[in-house]
Amino acid sequence: MEAGLDGGWDSVRGLLGGKGANLAEMTRLGIPVPPGFTVTTRACLSYLDGDGRLPDGLWSQVLHALHAIEDRLDKRFGDPAAPLLVSCRSGAKFSMPGMMDTVLNLGLNDETAKGLVALTGDEHFVFDSYRRLIQMFGTVVLGLRDELFENVLSDARHVRGVTSDADLSADELRTVVARFRDLAAGFPTDPAEQLRMAIEAVFSSWNGRRAVDYRNAAGIAHDLGTAVNIQAMVFGNLGEHSATGVCMTRSGATGLPGLEGDFLVNAQGEDVVSGTRATRPIEALAQVMPTAYAELQAMAAKLEARYHEMQDIEFTVEDGRLWLLQTRDGKRTAQAAVRIAVDLANEGLIGRADAVRRVTPSQVDFFLHPQLAVAARQQAADEGRLIATGLNVSPGAAVGVAAFDPDVAQRLAGDGRQVILVRPETKPDDVHGMLAAEGILTTRGGRTSHAALVARQFGKPAVVGVGALEVDLVGHRATMGELVIEEGDWLSLDGSTGEVYAGRLDTFVPDISDGWLATLLGWADDLRTLGVRANADYPADARRARDYGAEGIGLCRTEHMFFQSERLPVMQRMIMSDSVTERRDALAELEPLQRDDFLGLFRAMDGLPVIIRLVDPPLHEFLPTFEELSKRITDAKIRLSAAGSLDEVDDLLGRLRRDEDLLRQVRALHESNPMLGLRGVRLAIRHPEILQMQARAIFAAACDAAEEGGGPRPEVMIPLTSDAGELIRARQVIDSEAAAVFADRGITVDYLVGTMVETPRAALTADKLAEHADFFSVGSNDLTQTTYALSRDDAETSFLIDYLRTGVYDHDPFSSLDPDGVGLLIDRAIAAARTREDDFEVGVCGEHGGDPASIAWCHAHGLTYVSCSPFRVPVARLAAAQAALATAS
Amino acid sequence: MEAGLDGGWDSVRGLLGGKGANLAEMTRLGIPVPPGFTVTTRACLSYLDGDGRLPDGLWSQVLHALHAIEDRLDKRFGDPAAPLLVSCRSGAKFSMPGMMDTVLNLGLNDETAKGLVALTGDEHFVFDSYRRLIQMFGTVVLGLRDELFENVLSDARHVRGVTSDADLSADELRTVVARFRDLAAGFPTDPAEQLRMAIEAVFSSWNGRRAVDYRNAAGIAHDLGTAVNIQAMVFGNLGEHSATGVCMTRSGATGLPGLEGDFLVNAQGEDVVSGTRATRPIEALAQVMPTAYAELQAMAAKLEARYHEMQDIEFTVEDGRLWLLQTRDGKRTAQAAVRIAVDLANEGLIGRADAVRRVTPSQVDFFLHPQLAVAARQQAADEGRLIATGLNVSPGAAVGVAAFDPDVAQRLAGDGRQVILVRPETKPDDVHGMLAAEGILTTRGGRTSHAALVARQFGKPAVVGVGALEVDLVGHRATMGELVIEEGDWLSLDGSTGEVYAGRLDTFVPDISDGWLATLLGWADDLRTLGVRANADYPADARRARDYGAEGIGLCRTEHMFFQSERLPVMQRMIMSDSVTERRDALAELEPLQRDDFLGLFRAMDGLPVIIRLVDPPLHEFLPTFEELSKRITDAKIRLSAAGSLDEVDDLLGRLRRDEDLLRQVRALHESNPMLGLRGVRLAIRHPEILQMQARAIFAAACDAAEEGGGPRPEVMIPLTSDAGELIRARQVIDSEAAAVFADRGITVDYLVGTMVETPRAALTADKLAEHADFFSVGSNDLTQTTYALSRDDAETSFLIDYLRTGVYDHDPFSSLDPDGVGLLIDRAIAAARTREDDFEVGVCGEHGGDPASIAWCHAHGLTYVSCSPFRVPVARLAAAQAALATAS
Repeated sequence: MEAGLDGGWDSVRGLLGGKGANLAEMTRLGIPVPPGFTVTTRACLSYLDGDGRLPDGLWSQVLHALHAIEDRLDKRFGDPAAPLLVSCRSGAKFSMPGMMDTVLNLGLNDETAKGLVALTGDEHFVFDSYRRLIQMFGTVVLGLRDELFENVLSDARHVRGVTSDADLSADELRTVVARFRDLAAGFPTDPAEQLRMAIEAVFSSWNGRRAVDYRNAAGIAHDLGTAVNIQAMVFGNLGEHSATGVCMTRSGATGLPGLEGDFLVNAQGEDVVSGTRATRPIEALAQVMPTAYAELQAMAAKLEARYHEMQDIEFTVEDGRLWLLQTRDGKRTAQAAVRIAVDLANEGLIGRADAVRRVTPSQVDFFLHPQLAVAARQQAADEGRLIATGLNVSPGAAVGVAAFDPDVAQRLAGDGRQVILVRPETKPDDVHGMLAAEGILTTRGGRTSHAALVARQFGKPAVVGVGALEVDLVGHRATMGELVIEEGDWLSLDGSTGEVYAGRLDTFVPDISDGWLATLLGWADDLRTLGVRANADYPADARRARDYGAEGIGLCRTEHMFFQSERLPVMQRMIMSDSVTERRDALAELEPLQRDDFLGLFRAMDGLPVIIRLVDPPLHEFLPTFEELSKRITDAKIRLSAAGSLDEVDDLLGRLRRDEDLLRQVRALHESNPMLGLRGVRLAIRHPEILQMQARAIFAAACDAAEEGGGPRPEVMIPLTSDAGELIRARQVIDSEAAAVFADRGITVDYLVGTMVETPRAALTADKLAEHADFFSVGSNDLTQTTYALSRDDAETSFLIDYLRTGVYDHDPFSSLDPDGVGLLIDRAIAAARTREDDFEVGVCGEHGGDPASIAWCHAHGLTYVSCSPFRVPVARLAAAQAALATAS
Repeated sequence: MEAGLDGGWDSVRGLLGGKGANLAEMTRLGIPVPPGFTVTTRACLSYLDGDGRLPDGLWSQVLHALHAIEDRLDKRFGDPAAPLLVSCRSGAKFSMPGMMDTVLNLGLNDETAKGLVALTGDEHFVFDSYRRLIQMFGTVVLGLRDELFENVLSDARHVRGVTSDADLSADELRTVVARFRDLAAGFPTDPAEQLRMAIEAVFSSWNGRRAVDYRNAAGIAHDLGTAVNIQAMVFGNLGEHSATGVCMTRSGATGLPGLEGDFLVNAQGEDVVSGTRATRPIEALAQVMPTAYAELQAMAAKLEARYHEMQDIEFTVEDGRLWLLQTRDGKRTAQAAVRIAVDLANEGLIGRADAVRRVTPSQVDFFLHPQLAVAARQQAADEGRLIATGLNVSPGAAVGVAAFDPDVAQRLAGDGRQVILVRPETKPDDVHGMLAAEGILTTRGGRTSHAALVARQFGKPAVVGVGALEVDLVGHRATMGELVIEEGDWLSLDGSTGEVYAGRLDTFVPDISDGWLATLLGWADDLRTLGVRANADYPADARRARDYGAEGIGLCRTEHMFFQSERLPVMQRMIMSDSVTERRDALAELEPLQRDDFLGLFRAMDGLPVIIRLVDPPLHEFLPTFEELSKRITDAKIRLSAAGSLDEVDDLLGRLRRDEDLLRQVRALHESNPMLGLRGVRLAIRHPEILQMQARAIFAAACDAAEEGGGPRPEVMIPLTSDAGELIRARQVIDSEAAAVFADRGITVDYLVGTMVETPRAALTADKLAEHADFFSVGSNDLTQTTYALSRDDAETSFLIDYLRTGVYDHDPFSSLDPDGVGLLIDRAIAAARTREDDFEVGVCGEHGGDPASIAWCHAHGLTYVSCSPFRVPVARLAAAQAALATAS
């Protein structure tokens, strides 16, 4: 023993272990923790190196320290009149939860037990403590199998007809203790001997198999040893002047400052937690024990000041005296996390950078998903409709009717119903149902189950592993005890908490636009250097994105505009045209519509850059599918063979001819691998009239905006480039349309022309592309697809899920940017761009732009901005700030 | 004038110009060339720099040199009794064919013409020469429009009622000369004045517009100036002791050593070429003029010794005296090129490396295409069936019936007929017909026309630009003058020469296995360091490849074995299996068949490496297409609705059910982009039982081969890897099957396990892959597709052709490896591999392996081998040697 607990040093965790250092630190702060001391790791190593003997002098030091505790508490170890009980716990430098051993209640024997009964009047408590001591000592120190003890308890419960040990009477516990004493023949009645053996056992547990395996897995060195913490036991059930409770220094639900918690007078800690007695709110302690309450408040402030964080405290009042048994960072909801971080910073306890560091991107993400309304959740719980809590594998709330079959789910969704897909587990065959559903609920599987992975992939709230629910696929129902859920019954689930409710709960979308999150994101903006733009196709999206803090549009997918119902027929006419003239006519109809779209975007993003990507997908995407047309034609033919009237024949023939025309075109446009086919810049070069129309619409809209007094900043982006030759030709057309529009309007608007870097070759030849581009935008989705030769559409519902489950891939490259392959290509593009110009704009658009790990990568690798969906903009702002902080430190 | 022709220096081309240096060199060798001299480029520059005056002293030097000629020939310039005529030609350092000026027959005037008539008795010849002099002098020196002269000639022809100037009588030519003299009033009768003005005109032509444009286009400096060559004219038509002829020093058709050519006694050069008189074979000269013939043979040997190459010689015997007018490298067929190179090396005229350098890969390629039989070609020509010669844009012979419509071509080909597609030009819509045809013939278009590009792409012989042929698409026929080609008539074409024959000519495939090509390729093998393997799927292919010199199999595509007719149903059963057990049963049927295949390969490639690629394509490729099944189902449904008997209904229903099962599976296996989908290693991981079967078959076959005493060298290759995790898992299965087979058989065979590098990410993470692979093989086809995001299937018949035509791409990356993008990735893979091990095997399989430019790249970048189709192996051997020679020098 080399360091008394009172003089503990926080910085000497190697010697004292984490727990020892923590207790020492609290002691140093004047926090009333039950007195104790720590036997250092050095003693442990000496013990382990030697032949299992305690180092010279250690024992006398232990006894010396024990006397100090006795003196402090006015109790004596082994004295029936005032028995001191102590705990003996391991505590290594690095936390190894559950891996090493603990023995509580050392100091009890028949005599001290009797004394304690006299003192507390609680025979049940005393003999329960005593039987726990023997059981722990038996297993940990004596190496007996726990089964032996559990069998005794189970017999006792059986005789008594109860299911919980807590329901055993004091007498029965006394009998259990007697039988335990028989089992654990080596259990010493001498408290000092108990303590010595316990210390040695904790030392030895360092080399136990569980601990060694854990260290191997966690990469912790094997030569550190463990410290041993000896601490007095204190009791909150010594009468009306004793109490026990738990509290947080601020609300874990909302972040509201002030103690929040529960306590019980004359009770033990587990009584508070178990819910067997009705607890009282912590505020009531002010009336019952004003001194202890005041002291608790003071301690809370002290702890927050020390740990710069909201604390979760366990305390006991033993005979009027407050002891803090444990303090740790408190758990909290996402809302609370944000408010607490901001408040702590405003209170000066932490800096703004700390506040930004402390909120996780997934906590911000919480604000972006619908949530179950708090009141509805409470009411449902009160009504007993919280039917289960499973694994919270994909965040957000989902409300819908139960469907037990993916086909049913798809059909119901097709009818406009909201659906929760309920399955024992999911398989690739179920994916269409999962996609159709609002949320997913399974009875089996864990965090990496198929259901969990697919749900996260597609942003579907999901709760998995609700084992108590039994799904009857044949009967199309699920049961849970008495409860029966029929197909079509409403369910509500919260993928952030894992809660599942019967019925249809109200949901809400948290407001992020003002309050603490806005403050926090404002601080994040001050800290980050990486720009954040949004992918937005419509003016409404653009406005939302700007509200969320986007600094421009990183990607407007112009083809989305063509899919709108009144435009699609014109687009189809354009595609079906036999001549350039016909095609131009159709395009002339689309042009004013596109121009309006663009004007809306320029207005919404006034003064900020708006990157408009030229039409990208293969033309066949605008036509019905081959399968659909085949079916229509077959049906028409069959009906034709049975047609009754000439009119009907005429009608059928007319439709047949139209569909056969369409089919011919679909066949002509058919490509084996459309992702690698005639799309992007290739389309622009094949059909320059489309490109010309889009360019005119962009520049005319920019002139409109400028005439309104706005500051439009169009950036025209060419997709799928893989060779400078493509860029040169497309740019020529764009520049010449711009010149024509500007000449016509008598206005000039500054604009940029750039290219996507979404093929490996674009990245590899970026030096050549940079000569003809004003900016690059990395299309990380497509770049990932081509770099891996992995079609996302095909893979995500198929082998990619298997790859992630079985660890072939260590991460999903579509969720988080692949630094080893895709990253190298992006690096190359950046280097080429910056060789040309120091501040050459290189952004990332694609879903990686909203992924914190990818954002960190983008910051570290010098990208200009990330662009993500409007809803991810707040996440990106935070993540970009955290990335800046991480690389700055 | 600074250098007399007799003392010419070959190395002073800058001063003498190419022609002058060449003539000087021949003179130096003692070759009898008509005497002459060269006025240097320096004189030209001085003339141009000055104010258009000849430099001081030049003219007297010219006259001095002229006297030397007079003395040598015993003729005098301007002397009617023995008139000397001279030519005056430009000759710059770099050849600028047709760009600058020439004046022949200088020295003629009324008097000398009369003298020459007396001397030759050939008034027609003399006045034809005279009118040519005036016409050339008039246009070149006096700057008159050639039309003026041509009008006179055309009038004369019209009066006489002939179409050729050669048919004008001597008298008529005399009248023409008189009229020419009127037109060209400035034509000097003084021969010296003619010469002076001609020299100045040639000097001035250096700055003529044509010449300047040409130099700009060809990148030739403008400050070089031109030399002027003055050379005596000699005449082969001065009687029975005069003759003229052309010959090659070896046969241009076969390469057979010895003079080959034609001559005419008492004739001019153009009489030999024009075919107006029947020429005699050169051997006959030995009888007629034995001395001249012997001298010609000696000169031929001397020229070959000097130029180390077969020569094409023009000669004239003037009154018993042999003059060589020109020598140049002779044109030759591919066969002759090979034989000549080998013979020259064997004769010690060149080294073996020179011989290897001198044959082009496309000449070797000639041996790999069917050719029109020589006899058949000759006979057809004799029968007047050589109907046209167009542009030879895609080599090889094709024989088939004419089809004037791509649909017809496809239908006829579907009926098993050989077809030649004849079109005015081709468009993307015609590609299916082009693919169905044996060969392609168009009346329009050039070397980069759609037809030419597509034909080369797909290895279809093609002749384009046969303008004389008129295609009547409506009447389905073509006409050429009298000739009518109906649809279905036989045509034969030679894409190597551009010849088109009516009728069905025999073809043959040149034998490469022995003779001169074999010798040449043997020398190439000694010179090259790059290995050459073959892509071969069947034992017969492997044997052929080995005959052609392959040093192993670089790629065996095992799935090809599954497409064989008796195996496909088993494969389909495997795919349709509901359970792993059923699938294993089907695989068990395939296993012995695969094992036999592999044993055949090991036998054919005994002692050489055999790379076996595991099954690669998506499974749906083994099933009927969606379209085919839809059609079958529709037909069955329609027939069902009209079915007569119950038996028929039963039968139709049965078929319908089977097809609907198949359709369901096809739909389940459907992928948007199968190239990027579930194939390659992904398939192996998803269905390890397939991988296991293949591995067992490989190792069992290897054991079989080893038991026969063979030396099998299996290299198992994993396709489509994009992450080390995939490789690790697949390799595990392979290694464990190998261990099991070897244990079972009590034999161990050395084997390698490697991976394709055919995704960009495989190349980018090659360092990680190299840890788990024994070899890499770059799948350059797929790597090109993914690097460009370019589906070859879709692009080659679509926009890729446009890209090449319009120059968006400067080359087709599927024909020739893209060094700027794909090449960088391959470099990375090589570097990673060689970091791991100096001789880590990295090959390229894919069609680039047979492309000379790509082979040169592969050699320069340190690849271990290229692997190409068996037929390309000889080309690759040569190209690899040439690459080695190129980098060594």
